[in-house]
Amino acid sequence: MEKPNNQTMVIFGASGDLTYRKLIPALYALYNQQMLPEKLHVLGVSRTAITDEAFHEKMTDGIRNFSENIHLNEQQIEEFISHTSYFQMDMSLPDEYLRLKTTLNKININEGTDGNYMFYLSTPPSMFSVISGNLAKVGLSNPSNGFKRLIIEKPFGYDLESGLMLNRQLHEAFNESQIYRIDHYLGKETVQNLLVMRFANGIFEPLWNRNYVDHVEITSAESIGVEGRGGYYDGSGALRDMLQNHLLQVVGLTAMEPPSSMDADAIRNETMKVMQSLKPIREEDVPRQVIRGQYITSHVRGEYIPGYRDEKGVNPESRTETFVAMKFFIDNWRWSGVPFYIRTGKRLPTRVTEVVVHFKPTPQSLFQNDDTCKSGNQLIIRIQPDEGILLKFGLKQPGTGFNVKGVNMDFHYSELSDVHLPSAYERLIYDAMIGDSTLYARADAVEAAWKFVAPIQKVWNNDPSQKIYGYPAGTWGPENAEALFEEKGDGWRYPCKNLADDGEYCEL
Amino acid sequence: MEKPNNQTMVIFGASGDLTYRKLIPALYALYNQQMLPEKLHVLGVSRTAITDEAFHEKMTDGIRNFSENIHLNEQQIEEFISHTSYFQMDMSLPDEYLRLKTTLNKININEGTDGNYMFYLSTPPSMFSVISGNLAKVGLSNPSNGFKRLIIEKPFGYDLESGLMLNRQLHEAFNESQIYRIDHYLGKETVQNLLVMRFANGIFEPLWNRNYVDHVEITSAESIGVEGRGGYYDGSGALRDMLQNHLLQVVGLTAMEPPSSMDADAIRNETMKVMQSLKPIREEDVPRQVIRGQYITSHVRGEYIPGYRDEKGVNPESRTETFVAMKFFIDNWRWSGVPFYIRTGKRLPTRVTEVVVHFKPTPQSLFQNDDTCKSGNQLIIRIQPDEGILLKFGLKQPGTGFNVKGVNMDFHYSELSDVHLPSAYERLIYDAMIGDSTLYARADAVEAAWKFVAPIQKVWNNDPSQKIYGYPAGTWGPENAEALFEEKGDGWRYPCKNLADDGEYCEL
Repeated sequence: MEKPNNQTMVIFGASGDLTYRKLIPALYALYNQQMLPEKLHVLGVSRTAITDEAFHEKMTDGIRNFSENIHLNEQQIEEFISHTSYFQMDMSLPDEYLRLKTTLNKININEGTDGNYMFYLSTPPSMFSVISGNLAKVGLSNPSNGFKRLIIEKPFGYDLESGLMLNRQLHEAFNESQIYRIDHYLGKETVQNLLVMRFANGIFEPLWNRNYVDHVEITSAESIGVEGRGGYYDGSGALRDMLQNHLLQVVGLTAMEPPSSMDADAIRNETMKVMQSLKPIREEDVPRQVIRGQYITSHVRGEYIPGYRDEKGVNPESRTETFVAMKFFIDNWRWSGVPFYIRTGKRLPTRVTEVVVHFKPTPQSLFQNDDTCKSGNQLIIRIQPDEGILLKFGLKQPGTGFNVKGVNMDFHYSELSDVHLPSAYERLIYDAMIGDSTLYARADAVEAAWKFVAPIQKVWNNDPSQKIYGYPAGTWGPENAEALFEEKGDGWRYPCKNLADDGEYCEL
Repeated sequence: MEKPNNQTMVIFGASGDLTYRKLIPALYALYNQQMLPEKLHVLGVSRTAITDEAFHEKMTDGIRNFSENIHLNEQQIEEFISHTSYFQMDMSLPDEYLRLKTTLNKININEGTDGNYMFYLSTPPSMFSVISGNLAKVGLSNPSNGFKRLIIEKPFGYDLESGLMLNRQLHEAFNESQIYRIDHYLGKETVQNLLVMRFANGIFEPLWNRNYVDHVEITSAESIGVEGRGGYYDGSGALRDMLQNHLLQVVGLTAMEPPSSMDADAIRNETMKVMQSLKPIREEDVPRQVIRGQYITSHVRGEYIPGYRDEKGVNPESRTETFVAMKFFIDNWRWSGVPFYIRTGKRLPTRVTEVVVHFKPTPQSLFQNDDTCKSGNQLIIRIQPDEGILLKFGLKQPGTGFNVKGVNMDFHYSELSDVHLPSAYERLIYDAMIGDSTLYARADAVEAAWKFVAPIQKVWNNDPSQKIYGYPAGTWGPENAEALFEEKGDGWRYPCKNLADDGEYCEL
């Protein structure tokens, strides 16, 4: 394990929930595993006026309440916290950055952090270019004397134009190689495992192409609604909030060519090529290839579930989608003609994220009663929950004749339970600290993803006749989503039934 | 399910153990499942003078003591037994067969079995041609008025010459299509499942060839010794008793091309082609490609285990092998250059039969600490015990970096435990009753298998300088068996450790 270089981590927006619930607990978990630099100072920055002591207290609280799978050690927490401090400033005022620079110089000398700075922007996206620009103006983006890295959280723009503009602004202050765009999906073990599964095993790669794959299905379902974040969500929607970033990244890892090495840019070059090969959806095809939905009032197990338009903070005439399903193609030698289906939504029957690779049936059906043969083998890669791999195939039904019965062969990540499963933030912060950007989104890929969804955004925004289908909370979205499969007999995989229909318990 | 035509089943050697322990219990199990013909009579034939009543009593006893996984119903047993009777004769005297014919005619008329006869030869092999010849002489092999089928048990000869002679003699009396050569290995669910697994799934077939398979390993281990059958075994040995028949049949099913249909002859044509493609082992290569062994005295968990030469009925200077391991090739387009390794033996650490397909490692190793990558993926098809499928592959070791960890994905047949698993004899007798010879060995395949082992038999018989290696009971055979792998780093798979070394409990 590589030990990161000494550094100061500056968290902008340190009074927010992310710092308290995710970042500081993740840093402590890294400390607990001796994965932090020998010398590290964490400087919390925000507009709120609080003392170092109050900051320490809150962060200690965060570690105690939000650490997962880690043994808490009070003395160790105290040690860790002693290397954090707080700095109050108005992040919109350029002059304040000189003051920040002076403080950072002092920290650098006192703590011996070698002039290395990592700036983590846990702020509203409107501040990204303001902060990066001001850091650059006072020389804090200059990598000549210690590294200077900038971590930003999504959204990376709202559409192609704003995405391009954000990158342009960031690039005026920092080089692309200094910028780390967090997609917390890429921090998930099982998403990373896609790379290992595909490229450490001789048996999957030969099958992983248009000759043997019938279609690929990616589902990311949430059972919860907007949960008090209605105001934010109503300005975003499923396409932007999930599909353009997280799910297209998963598509990238599922569909990419073998990289020349495991270097960050070797891998990102390949996922990028996938983004660039996405077959553009023509505006006239949007209604046929993309189905959007919005959850409506429902009763699930006797409980009343409000519709999306009734949620707090949501426009009662909102046309923001809480569900999106689409069919698309990847125009390259490997995938030409293989349909990819993605869907994501809120208030679906369960929380599940999975990639399902449907293999073609055998060229000839030799057996009677061969269900497997008709539907083909399936490899299911479960990203959450119950992380693991499931292979569906046919075996002989015991008894006379040669009847085929579908069976499952599976592996659950929990079988490796002796191992601490790092949280996405642990993994990603550590990677940024050692300068490994493999799991961070690169500007060109983000732009390619915006370019891909642009026609959909355009049609939805400009054509009020475009349908948005209602679906009862607790169902698998509008029935029209099935129509994406057309001639394909099978349709979506349903890991569990509609809760709204039968109230049955839902299991994977 | 097809109901067999009415018939009379004639068991020659009905006073023997096989009839009592296997055949009658299997027939009862079929009766219990309503899989017997509407009208069936079972006539036991042997030299022993016993009454019908004594025969009934003994057979009832056999059903009570040797039925497996079947609910016994006393009234049903009585009904079944009422359709059996006994006939005493000297099977070596031609005249006796006229008397037998008269009795069969009576049964045929009384029981309405439509002139269909199935002759089951549960006798010493020396009687096979005597009985078949005499049946033919009195017209009992003539299929013009009801079918006439002949079931024989191995051994089908002792070497190429005697195998050819036996077939010639059988063919003078019966057509090949009337002859059913039982290989009880082919009656096993998991052996038959090889066909379904390979040809009902789209994902295995593309990998099942020289491009992706590194080598194939087939092990059939027994933990017991000769168990009082020393006299018989000493005249046979592992090559004849297991390898030439059972294991080469398993090779056939593992390596065959997809058949044009599931018809008996379509399948047997393909396994036959495998037999014909076995690359002949030159006599001078026998010492390098074939290792034989004999178990010697050992202590296993404190218990004294006698050596083979100390077993009752065994020549104290015996050179009969109780272990054989060999490496060979199949010279066809699919398998050229892929080594196949087979081993079988007695007094090994456990009872296990499995086929292990070792896939080639990835063309390039992208990950650190990638053990899986070096050794490649393995598909393990367990034939017994704990029947099932196991796939060994690499996943991401949770935590930083991209380290690969070998994991198992498995399916156990016992998960389908709601289903009655038919015994090999149930399956095979039923198949013969409906005239399905898929799971029976055909003359040409038997001869091709003898031809393949002929050079080994020749060298072993004629060259007293050929080594036979001792191995302590409870170990995996002579160490020289490892030398078959030469440059291949891995060697045999060991489902459990040598018992003779460490006395540990052995688990799959």
